[in-house]
Amino acid sequence: MTYNVQIKVMPLKDLLDPQGKAVLGGLQNLGLGAVTDVRVGKHITLQVDADTEAQAKSIAEEATKKLLANPVMEFFEIEMIN
Amino acid sequence: MTYNVQIKVMPLKDLLDPQGKAVLGGLQNLGLGAVTDVRVGKHITLQVDADTEAQAKSIAEEATKKLLANPVMEFFEIEMIN
Repeated sequence: MTYNVQIKVMPLKDLLDPQGKAVLGGLQNLGLGAVTDVRVGKHITLQVDADTEAQAKSIAEEATKKLLANPVMEFFEIEMIN
Repeated sequence: MTYNVQIKVMPLKDLLDPQGKAVLGGLQNLGLGAVTDVRVGKHITLQVDADTEAQAKSIAEEATKKLLANPVMEFFEIEMIN
């Protein structure tokens, strides 16, 4: 069966996020001063062939650790969509 | 009050996603052949000062339409986190 896996990869909370800061400046120039903080990360969707949801999740975790996220600078969250 | 808004911006389903294709190739080289499709987009978190959740959501929508997403190539989803 094919499972749809959603992965969110964001810069660690303690690190500066220059891209987020740039977006924040842009929003303020557009008059959206109500936005006080922005952080920008990646959103990745995978289609995974696996027998069970748990197996699909473990494959997605392996993919994230090996290629998609850099643990020195990023954290990730994995969500399964049936 | 400050609201935490999560925004997912992904390439439209009908469009090619070269970054996703590159990641897919990388995963297959790593032996993760169970992954059959990858799409890569952006995940953005905003902190929005607003009186109500509905107001915060409408500010986030405006920000997304004006700056964060390109509707020609991308679609977005907004989720509020209390």
